[in-house]
Amino acid sequence: MLTREELDAAKSRAAVVLAETGIVLTSAEIDAIEVADFGLSRLDEIGLEIVVYVNTERVCAKELVLFPRQTCPEHRHPPFASSPGKEETFRCRRGVVYLYTEGEPAMNPACRPPEPDGDAFTVWHEIELRPGEQHTVPPNTLHWFQAGEEGAIVSEFSTTSTDELDVFTDSRIGRTTVVRDA
Amino acid sequence: MLTREELDAAKSRAAVVLAETGIVLTSAEIDAIEVADFGLSRLDEIGLEIVVYVNTERVCAKELVLFPRQTCPEHRHPPFASSPGKEETFRCRRGVVYLYTEGEPAMNPACRPPEPDGDAFTVWHEIELRPGEQHTVPPNTLHWFQAGEEGAIVSEFSTTSTDELDVFTDSRIGRTTVVRDA
Repeated sequence: MLTREELDAAKSRAAVVLAETGIVLTSAEIDAIEVADFGLSRLDEIGLEIVVYVNTERVCAKELVLFPRQTCPEHRHPPFASSPGKEETFRCRRGVVYLYTEGEPAMNPACRPPEPDGDAFTVWHEIELRPGEQHTVPPNTLHWFQAGEEGAIVSEFSTTSTDELDVFTDSRIGRTTVVRDA
Repeated sequence: MLTREELDAAKSRAAVVLAETGIVLTSAEIDAIEVADFGLSRLDEIGLEIVVYVNTERVCAKELVLFPRQTCPEHRHPPFASSPGKEETFRCRRGVVYLYTEGEPAMNPACRPPEPDGDAFTVWHEIELRPGEQHTVPPNTLHWFQAGEEGAIVSEFSTTSTDELDVFTDSRIGRTTVVRDA
């Protein structure tokens, strides 16, 4: 849950970072910036600010803004209907983002999971992405990511986004942000 | 057909415009910038400079660089196999781009087709895109576009790109750029 003030502050902060990076949005897009706290009410640690450019029945493109050390929690995009699940390419535009997926775990990972949620972060194959670098996560593959000390902007190119189907490792997580009016 | 010098000059010019716009590429991506002259050997008038970020069996993302008044000639993306054809969203990042598709023709279009190829431009529904503005072209729909006087950068979010299947109105067009050494 977020208060209206927290929501508006996060939207403004994301809009400023995007503008500083030279990414131009319409005012309707700025108004529509999605602030996801994943139902945990700890936005600074676990959260994501999202601009959805397009999401058709076939293709989706977004910008993701991560504040310093902000974490998108571990999840996967399972198969549904005739789809094998969502395929995502993450391309770093600003800052550094550490992407963790299934595979050989990093010996000394650059990130720690937000306390006290260590059990909800189970994959530790580390991919460090700096501006111009990208990685494609196949469908139905566990992944999570965290920005470095200066935050990050990440472009996401994917198949259709169906957030409500995402499966999070932390069963307390709800994908819909609830806003409490003071 | 392009000479090696024309190809290299266009790549460098595109790389500079992208860098000026704050779009960071790896050196491998800069090396791989595609310069398309559509087989017409008039790159300044009819051509496109392309960075392919990703092109999987499901999703494609590119940056398109258009030099001042450079035109991408009229074409459509027909159905193939089990696909209805490529769906494309064009998002302007810099400059102005005039996108023409099927629909009500513009009374006073902002662009003229490159001479003497007027017959190869048959759709005149005009969509003007400035930074932050975008439009989605459905599959199998005729479209062409031209940059304004200052050129343009356009992000393309689409289904899989299969250039060899594109159908151009101008039957002389070949999608593969032939480079002539010296």
